[in-house]
Amino acid sequence: MTNRRIVLTSRPQGVPRPADFRIDTAAIARPGAGEVLLRHTWLGLAPAARLRMGEEASYREPMALGDVVYGQAIGHVVESQAPSLPVGTAVMSVSGGWQEYSVARAENLVRVDESVAPANVWLGALGTSGMTAYVGLLDLGQPREGETVVVSAASGGVGSNVGQIARLKGCRVVGIAGGEDKVRHVRDQLGFDAAVDYKSADFAQALTAACPSGVDIYFDNVGGAVRDAVWPLMNPGGRIVVCGLIAEYNDSRQGGPGWFPILSKRLALHGFIMSDHLHRQPEFLRDMAQWIQQGRIHIQEDVSEGLESVVPAFIRMLTGKNFGKTVVRL
Amino acid sequence: MTNRRIVLTSRPQGVPRPADFRIDTAAIARPGAGEVLLRHTWLGLAPAARLRMGEEASYREPMALGDVVYGQAIGHVVESQAPSLPVGTAVMSVSGGWQEYSVARAENLVRVDESVAPANVWLGALGTSGMTAYVGLLDLGQPREGETVVVSAASGGVGSNVGQIARLKGCRVVGIAGGEDKVRHVRDQLGFDAAVDYKSADFAQALTAACPSGVDIYFDNVGGAVRDAVWPLMNPGGRIVVCGLIAEYNDSRQGGPGWFPILSKRLALHGFIMSDHLHRQPEFLRDMAQWIQQGRIHIQEDVSEGLESVVPAFIRMLTGKNFGKTVVRL
Repeated sequence: MTNRRIVLTSRPQGVPRPADFRIDTAAIARPGAGEVLLRHTWLGLAPAARLRMGEEASYREPMALGDVVYGQAIGHVVESQAPSLPVGTAVMSVSGGWQEYSVARAENLVRVDESVAPANVWLGALGTSGMTAYVGLLDLGQPREGETVVVSAASGGVGSNVGQIARLKGCRVVGIAGGEDKVRHVRDQLGFDAAVDYKSADFAQALTAACPSGVDIYFDNVGGAVRDAVWPLMNPGGRIVVCGLIAEYNDSRQGGPGWFPILSKRLALHGFIMSDHLHRQPEFLRDMAQWIQQGRIHIQEDVSEGLESVVPAFIRMLTGKNFGKTVVRL
Repeated sequence: MTNRRIVLTSRPQGVPRPADFRIDTAAIARPGAGEVLLRHTWLGLAPAARLRMGEEASYREPMALGDVVYGQAIGHVVESQAPSLPVGTAVMSVSGGWQEYSVARAENLVRVDESVAPANVWLGALGTSGMTAYVGLLDLGQPREGETVVVSAASGGVGSNVGQIARLKGCRVVGIAGGEDKVRHVRDQLGFDAAVDYKSADFAQALTAACPSGVDIYFDNVGGAVRDAVWPLMNPGGRIVVCGLIAEYNDSRQGGPGWFPILSKRLALHGFIMSDHLHRQPEFLRDMAQWIQQGRIHIQEDVSEGLESVVPAFIRMLTGKNFGKTVVRL
C-alpha cells in the first residue's frame, strides 16, 4: 500500500502549468507517539499554495522542489498513536498536503462534526477560508453597522464568507467578481447588496455607483487593477485588510498605488495571515456553525474528483474560473 | 493699528514660490464672548500647510485663494473676553496662522508655561511636532524594547523627536537625513544609534548596513524614494506610521511600492493626523515636559526673524534645507 502524492517539479513562472507538478508514489509514513495516520477524503485548494511555490520567502519558507504541495485536507484516522483520536475519527488538517495519506500530531487537527455540516464544508466555511474571512473582517476590519464593505474575489472561498458575515453585521456589502454568472451568484444567492464585474468595460464607474457612500472597509483578495479601482473610493478612517494578492502572485514586482490617501484619509492597512490568529478558533467555530445551522451562510463549492484533478482545479482557481471554495474529493 | 498677514495668491505648482504669497494688511478682528485676541510672537511652520495649498481636499478643506496661510503660533493675550485667559497670558494656538494677530476661542488654546521651556519650544517639542512624534510613535508604532526604528526627515521637527523618544523606549534608532551636516547632528547631538544620508550614492546599502536586524517600525515623514529604500527591509509584523509624504506633496500622483510584503510580512500601515488624537495631550505634555527638564530631549530649532522671512523659511523647509523645527520670531 503506497501513498500517491503531488510534488512540485519546477517553480512556476507566472500561472502554474501541469508540467510544474508530478504525481508520484511513496511509502506510507507511520505515526509516532502522539501522532495519527490520516487517509484523506477531501483536499481543499487555496491560492496561498501558489505563494510557497516561488523562490521568495513569504510568511513561510518556500517549498523545495520535490516537496508535496501544501494544502488543507479532510481525512479519517486509520492508525492512531494518540488516545484522543481513535481510528475512524474524522478530522481536518491544515497542512495535510496534496496526497492520499498524511501523518499529523493530534493537537494540530480539528475534529470534524458532520452533524454541523458535511465533511467538505470543514475545508471551506468551517475551515481555513471561513476563519480567514471571520478573523480578517471582524478583528482587523472592525465593521460597524451601516458601513460599506467591499470584497474582491467575492464568489471565492474567502470572499463569499467575508460578504455574508459583513451582511450579518449590518453592513452594506459590495462584491467584486469576474463575469456575469459570478456577479449574479454573489448578488442573488449570497445576498450581497450589489456586485460588480471587474471584467466589464465600465468596472470603475459601476463600482463607484455601487458605493454611493464610499468604502469603509476593503477586504482585498486580489490586489492589482481591482485594488487600484477601490483605492480612490476609500473613506476617511477606512481600513484595508490585505488577505490575498492573487493578481500579483505571478509577478510580485508590480507597483502599488501612491500613498497620498493613506495620509490624507488616515487609512489603516493590515496584512494578515490566519495562522497568526489561531486563538480565535473557538469563537469562530461557535459563530460559524450557528450561522450555517440557521441557514444564514450559503455554502458554495467547486468540486472535482480524484487526485488527477487537483492540478487542473488549482490552475482554474488561480485564473478565476472556480465558483466557490475549490475542493477535490479523493 | 492693523494686522499684517500672509495670504495665498496662487496655488503652488510643485515647490511653492514667493510669488504664490503676498503680505497684506487688514483690520484687527475683535474677540467675541469666550474669545481672546492674540498678538503673535512666534510662528511655527510645518509641511502640512503645503497640503492645504493644493486644490485636492486632503484631511482638511483646501485653503481658498486670499486666505491667511494656516499654521501654529505663540502669542500673548492682548484683549480678553474669556475669564480663563486674562490679558498677558502666553498661549499656543494650533491655527493662529501666518499673521501678527489672531482671534481664538479660549478652549482651543494651550497655556505656555515658560518655566518648563521657552515659548518657542511650545511650537516644536512641546507643540504639534512633538505631539505628532509622541502619538504616532507610541500609539500607532507601539515600539518594544530592542526593536529597530527608522525615521526619515530625522533632523526635522517631528523626526528629531520620534528618534529621541524611541531611544528613551529602548529601541535601536536609525535616522535618515539629507547631507553630512544633518547626519552628523542626528547621530552626535540627537544620539541616534546610526544615521544615513539619503543623498549619498550608496544610500540603500548604507541603510541596510545600519539595520542589521531589519526594521520593525518605519516612521515615514517623506515617502518617495526614501520610503522605497526602507520597504524591503521591513521585518515580519512591522509597522509603518505614515505621518508625512513631503517628497510627494508636489506630485501626489506618484505610485507606491507593491503590496506583496504587506501580505507576506503581515505589515500594518497607519496613516495618521495628530488632531485625531488630541485626547492624548495631557500625557504628552506631562512626559515631554519631564524629558525636556531632565535634559533627555535635545531641542533644535531653525529660527528666522520677521514676517517677511516666513515664506523663504517655508520654502527652505520644503526643500530640506532647514535644521530642526522651523520657527519665525515676530
